[in-house]
Amino acid sequence: MKFPIVFAMAAFAALSPAQVFKLTPDQLIRYTANNPFERFPDGRPKVPDNILERVKGLSAEEVFGIERRGYPNLYESGFRIVKPGKKLVGRAVTLMLVPLRPEVASVDSTGLPSNAPREKQISHQSALNLLQPGDVIVIDAHTVPGGIIGDNLAYFIYKRGAGFVIDGQIRDLDGIREIDMTGYYREAVPSFLTNCMVAGINVPVTIGKTTVLPGDVVFGDSEGVYFIPPAAVKAVVDRADETHIHDEWTKKKFDEGRYQSTDIYPSPIDSALKKEYEEYLKKHTQR
Amino acid sequence: MKFPIVFAMAAFAALSPAQVFKLTPDQLIRYTANNPFERFPDGRPKVPDNILERVKGLSAEEVFGIERRGYPNLYESGFRIVKPGKKLVGRAVTLMLVPLRPEVASVDSTGLPSNAPREKQISHQSALNLLQPGDVIVIDAHTVPGGIIGDNLAYFIYKRGAGFVIDGQIRDLDGIREIDMTGYYREAVPSFLTNCMVAGINVPVTIGKTTVLPGDVVFGDSEGVYFIPPAAVKAVVDRADETHIHDEWTKKKFDEGRYQSTDIYPSPIDSALKKEYEEYLKKHTQR
Amino acid sequence: MKFPIVFAMAAFAALSPAQVFKLTPDQLIRYTANNPFERFPDGRPKVPDNILERVKGLSAEEVFGIERRGYPNLYESGFRIVKPGKKLVGRAVTLMLVPLRPEVASVDSTGLPSNAPREKQISHQSALNLLQPGDVIVIDAHTVPGGIIGDNLAYFIYKRGAGFVIDGQIRDLDGIREIDMTGYYREAVPSFLTNCMVAGINVPVTIGKTTVLPGDVVFGDSEGVYFIPPAAVKAVVDRADETHIHDEWTKKKFDEGRYQSTDIYPSPIDSALKKEYEEYLKKHTQR
Amino acid sequence: MKFPIVFAMAAFAALSPAQVFKLTPDQLIRYTANNPFERFPDGRPKVPDNILERVKGLSAEEVFGIERRGYPNLYESGFRIVKPGKKLVGRAVTLMLVPLRPEVASVDSTGLPSNAPREKQISHQSALNLLQPGDVIVIDAHTVPGGIIGDNLAYFIYKRGAGFVIDGQIRDLDGIREIDMTGYYREAVPSFLTNCMVAGINVPVTIGKTTVLPGDVVFGDSEGVYFIPPAAVKAVVDRADETHIHDEWTKKKFDEGRYQSTDIYPSPIDSALKKEYEEYLKKHTQR
Amino acid sequence: MKFPIVFAMAAFAALSPAQVFKLTPDQLIRYTANNPFERFPDGRPKVPDNILERVKGLSAEEVFGIERRGYPNLYESGFRIVKPGKKLVGRAVTLMLVPLRPEVASVDSTGLPSNAPREKQISHQSALNLLQPGDVIVIDAHTVPGGIIGDNLAYFIYKRGAGFVIDGQIRDLDGIREIDMTGYYREAVPSFLTNCMVAGINVPVTIGKTTVLPGDVVFGDSEGVYFIPPAAVKAVVDRADETHIHDEWTKKKFDEGRYQSTDIYPSPIDSALKKEYEEYLKKHTQR
Amino acid sequence: MKFPIVFAMAAFAALSPAQVFKLTPDQLIRYTANNPFERFPDGRPKVPDNILERVKGLSAEEVFGIERRGYPNLYESGFRIVKPGKKLVGRAVTLMLVPLRPEVASVDSTGLPSNAPREKQISHQSALNLLQPGDVIVIDAHTVPGGIIGDNLAYFIYKRGAGFVIDGQIRDLDGIREIDMTGYYREAVPSFLTNCMVAGINVPVTIGKTTVLPGDVVFGDSEGVYFIPPAAVKAVVDRADETHIHDEWTKKKFDEGRYQSTDIYPSPIDSALKKEYEEYLKKHTQR
Repeated sequence: MKFPIVFAMAAFAALSPAQVFKLTPDQLIRYTANNPFERFPDGRPKVPDNILERVKGLSAEEVFGIERRGYPNLYESGFRIVKPGKKLVGRAVTLMLVPLRPEVASVDSTGLPSNAPREKQISHQSALNLLQPGDVIVIDAHTVPGGIIGDNLAYFIYKRGAGFVIDGQIRDLDGIREIDMTGYYREAVPSFLTNCMVAGINVPVTIGKTTVLPGDVVFGDSEGVYFIPPAAVKAVVDRADETHIHDEWTKKKFDEGRYQSTDIYPSPIDSALKKEYEEYLKKHTQR
Repeated sequence: MKFPIVFAMAAFAALSPAQVFKLTPDQLIRYTANNPFERFPDGRPKVPDNILERVKGLSAEEVFGIERRGYPNLYESGFRIVKPGKKLVGRAVTLMLVPLRPEVASVDSTGLPSNAPREKQISHQSALNLLQPGDVIVIDAHTVPGGIIGDNLAYFIYKRGAGFVIDGQIRDLDGIREIDMTGYYREAVPSFLTNCMVAGINVPVTIGKTTVLPGDVVFGDSEGVYFIPPAAVKAVVDRADETHIHDEWTKKKFDEGRYQSTDIYPSPIDSALKKEYEEYLKKHTQR
Repeated sequence: MKFPIVFAMAAFAALSPAQVFKLTPDQLIRYTANNPFERFPDGRPKVPDNILERVKGLSAEEVFGIERRGYPNLYESGFRIVKPGKKLVGRAVTLMLVPLRPEVASVDSTGLPSNAPREKQISHQSALNLLQPGDVIVIDAHTVPGGIIGDNLAYFIYKRGAGFVIDGQIRDLDGIREIDMTGYYREAVPSFLTNCMVAGINVPVTIGKTTVLPGDVVFGDSEGVYFIPPAAVKAVVDRADETHIHDEWTKKKFDEGRYQSTDIYPSPIDSALKKEYEEYLKKHTQR
Repeated sequence: MKFPIVFAMAAFAALSPAQVFKLTPDQLIRYTANNPFERFPDGRPKVPDNILERVKGLSAEEVFGIERRGYPNLYESGFRIVKPGKKLVGRAVTLMLVPLRPEVASVDSTGLPSNAPREKQISHQSALNLLQPGDVIVIDAHTVPGGIIGDNLAYFIYKRGAGFVIDGQIRDLDGIREIDMTGYYREAVPSFLTNCMVAGINVPVTIGKTTVLPGDVVFGDSEGVYFIPPAAVKAVVDRADETHIHDEWTKKKFDEGRYQSTDIYPSPIDSALKKEYEEYLKKHTQR
Repeated sequence: MKFPIVFAMAAFAALSPAQVFKLTPDQLIRYTANNPFERFPDGRPKVPDNILERVKGLSAEEVFGIERRGYPNLYESGFRIVKPGKKLVGRAVTLMLVPLRPEVASVDSTGLPSNAPREKQISHQSALNLLQPGDVIVIDAHTVPGGIIGDNLAYFIYKRGAGFVIDGQIRDLDGIREIDMTGYYREAVPSFLTNCMVAGINVPVTIGKTTVLPGDVVFGDSEGVYFIPPAAVKAVVDRADETHIHDEWTKKKFDEGRYQSTDIYPSPIDSALKKEYEEYLKKHTQR
Repeated sequence: MKFPIVFAMAAFAALSPAQVFKLTPDQLIRYTANNPFERFPDGRPKVPDNILERVKGLSAEEVFGIERRGYPNLYESGFRIVKPGKKLVGRAVTLMLVPLRPEVASVDSTGLPSNAPREKQISHQSALNLLQPGDVIVIDAHTVPGGIIGDNLAYFIYKRGAGFVIDGQIRDLDGIREIDMTGYYREAVPSFLTNCMVAGINVPVTIGKTTVLPGDVVFGDSEGVYFIPPAAVKAVVDRADETHIHDEWTKKKFDEGRYQSTDIYPSPIDSALKKEYEEYLKKHTQR
């Protein structure tokens, strides 16, 4: 059913003027101008599903080179992971939470706790409401205490989107683990989220030493998380195919048991082996 | 067979005057006067088995509210866990270990190492000897180095009681993991316990930022450990039943796919939904 | 000379639309609506100089109660301090630096490094240019590496304003120590600031676990820093006067050598002493 | 005037039965039976003033050997120090604070906060009231938040005793620094002490990895703190005199510029130098 | 096929003079003179396979006593482990990597990055080339950033040797986890190894607080890693057999449910039980 | 008197073959081949005194650029400093200490403790004996516990050389502070050095994330320590003179009060100001 998604867009329009930091669709388009793909109605880049599928086959090693190709500050580690064996891939929806200043929060009803009527409140749940299929909620909450989501909201994310990256706390870890979805967080606590306010939704946020933009492709493995700009994602997956073939060939040669590691890796020294590899690469790239 | 338990009581009486810190049964009763349940002969509150069974169904989130209802300082995290997926529930038997002062330890033979005959020594094992079925040994050992238990003593705890919470070190982790019992500890080391003395058995102890009393209900999940006073445990499990129903209903509504997270959670906004929930709650509470 | 200040305002107007996060004067007024004092042309609250003078006489202990009077999240510690014995008091000018995303930074020339002509660049120095007498530059740079100021820019701050609070790194500490001004920072390094972009100037920023607004009164002592909202500052300094008298009287009584600490502190128990204190308070408040 | 001291003893007698952990004078004497000196009326060992004077001339290096002579677990470091250049020497009065359990605290009015009348409360100040000239208050507060003393109570300690060692927080550091007394603590915060209870006064307490007994000689320098048992203190100061002479001779030889470090230190190799040193030692020991 | 192993020896000879730190076979024999077993051609002790098999049955607890028998500084913990449930046992081949000094690295082509032809470079892979069946590569890389091995080189180690202990970083953790081999490391990162040079191969290296010699028996369990000198390994495995029997008997007695922990553990008190144990031990040792 | 220095050389020759890691003078010359200055008889580069004098006027900021000019891995921070206001400048003599392996240490008598006669022992003092005027002892002791020097050996360093950088512990801090010399260390403890062995003297060592060579110029300020290769030191000091002039001019312009920080810093934008600066630079460089 399309209804909730339309509703989400409407909700977005409504809340757009109502946080400290916000971007109009035009502004979001301007700051992500090099996006080569479609966009959502709110301006957020929409990397196609088939590209996301190919990202799921990547390893962090294959994304690594991206920093040297003009896209710095995209990798963050030090998370705890709900399901360490499961990759997290999706499009970023972002949320910035900051410590409560009641005089600021009361202006737009962005605070927790709040005296405003529930339907007027802008909260962390307002960002969850925006999730589309394939979306990952990315939350900068490094300055606020309390579990941002528990098993109920995690279940909502699972029904709507693809997972979460929270630079902050969650609660009810055992309940969340029962859901077939992974997520990244800093600490699990029993306490509820409180004493904070929404500073911005779908604005650039920092997650550790990275800056994340709405629409970035989230790629999480058991080491950490990459936030890949839409403009870079195609080159990354194309190059990864070659890496897969290279690793396949390298291991085949090691299986033969005749070679030292330096004979073969990172690339063959011997010219006959070089040629053998190039032919292997050519053949398997064509397939 | 009842024999070992009677023996334990006798042992307790014998060692009662023999540590730096100790409580007579009268004193223990006085400090836990609000206990609504039976007691062990030594004055320790005995939360009934059927309540412990209900505690096993709790999540940390459901215990959380207890701090606001007049019971602060009951939650501690930062442990390593022998079997993270397995809940730990039981009644606390407490032990306080402190760095050795030989002139103090020699008075009551409470030290490690000790020159006293084995049968006169008061050691960490003296506290293990007191364990009854359903008991969890809770040890403040944050100031002393060395593994307090290895696989042999862990096996003894398993045969007698329900598990352990050690604010300190253990050893032989691989051997302990083979036993069908969980436990919480700070670090696994190869070295034996030494250079310490028993300061008290079944006295109040601190575990991190909590104070634990003998007879508290230990509740450990994959996030941390709660120590629930007997006086509070009934209210906690009763309230948890309602939380279970609430979460069940919330997830059912999310399954319908028609609602935003804020429509339903933490409670429905719309009056028809409110009424629907209240009827659901009533119906399922009755069952 | 007024020239540079007028220039600063002009510069502000010019750069106002040119960062990711920005507030118009109207927005800034709206988020600080409870400010009882004048404002700068850009909407920033201007706590009067005579109040700032009284703040210089405070101790952190005297500010402490503010959190319970409705102003949470205002204290941050864990800084290194250029001159630990010297209090830092002034009005906050804020700056948010985040890790560089070149596609974002190139839009408004907010990045470091930058290919844009110097006069078009928005940098951390753009925020320094806004400093007025009595201003403290408050910089959220917890996600970016490199020394944000060295001795040259510290000297500029000294000539223009009152000091700095940097949730990040500085460089050339020995040179900065030679200037008659204090400052708070996290770490001193030899490296230059780079690989970052300006996210906002005179917007709300987080410094550790606090949210700081432009115009907040910065109060730093040897323990940490308070950011006092303009709306609260008068009550804080008034109440501090009474605390000063209380401490004076308490120490006089301790000097007499006849009393236990509990006889006198935190308040006298004996009714005659109570009366004596009240008269002392009344008399010294009147002076 | 003797009055307050008599009063202190009376106060001690009164509060003695009123904490969770307590020792009668007989028990305290039993646990410190090897004390070779006089005792206070409450059983606490009283190392004579002339010995304390000699302790003031020690360095931590000179106390170090004590651990190998049968007195382990006496050294703790990692403190912040109010006046790093000033040695702290005195007799320990001990206090144990633990997280509040209201049902325990209400029994003897040992909690903070408390509803009991001020004159019935047992608090951290009850321990301060016991201080005698030359006493150092030693507080185990590693599990409780909030500043245990501020400038008023620090002033009281200064008037009565010799300083403090607090394994926990203090507040109003700037005010405390103005008093001519040093102290050791873990962190300075603006918040008041709360949410705790007194577990024992003048009982054995742990400070980091040490166990401290009432009457131990506290020795603090710029590296850390030693707690020297009365039974060991005479041997320590006697041996230190020889170390002073050894260091004096060693430096004189180094001043001559003719020797390698190994020729002289830790003891001379050459037999003529050995003899020279022995004569020097003999001569200067005699003085 | 023997060919690659012969090749390895040749390679070793060739590179032997080519690092900053190196040992001739004679020197290596001199520093491991108490080795009771055969040696590899390069002088490295070769603990026999049947002893390694017996080491696989050990627990860290059983190795622990070794430090008191004259072999200190052999245990290190704090690692992350690729396969925590799988023991790592093998003979150490060592490698020391240090931060690059280009003027040093250029002399022997030991640096990364390097301009020298591939076949002249001495790199971390040169050490991997030396691996024999049953060998564990032990790398001191605590001062250098970047992943020393990824899935390709891990696969090479798997084909040639038995596993790795890296006091440093690895990359491509997910890929390495797919290989049927365990390893110990400090952190997983996406970045490649760079900015370092080889300081020595098959020289003594430090791993945390241990010194490891080529030929030491590596023993890793889920707590940490022991490096057992060849001279000590026989005594360790012999003594472990007795410990196994002791633990077996202890648990049998606990199973009977009639004994307190102190009756049985660490050894029986009662003389009849003592005798029972001794007979059990004798009987089972004979088998 | 020259005697001890000649003696030192002799000692060096004697001990040269007697550690695990050692370099002949030829080897040391080979690894520092780009040294443009004289050498000591043992091959160690000898940066002239007049250059060392100019280094004393540097700030860390002025050394910083060196990493981009081909000399990476030279800066380390995180030290405690004996006299933070005093710069440390001198030529490095290096020492590597590692955890004791008795079978290795007994070969060359390099261990602590040792049973060898004092005159045959190679210890940390053997490295101190090599110190020449202007030398700084640089010790890698990050893996060994205990205070490497106390006040006696610090006094020896003061009489012979210029200071110390110890990646490890020292003892007797108060005694060391009385000497007119600064030093860098990680922690002050009361315990003596033990349980270690000398791995090498005047060999490359790692200090944190740097590799230090014998003869490097040590430059320590209140932020950290640079180890400057002899080949780079001339360029560093020459460039620093220009930086001094630049900073002087910049501050003069800020004193005028007419300029924004961006008008002047890091370099003037306006062409007239640019010219003014260039003339100032030229004039002051000529002086």
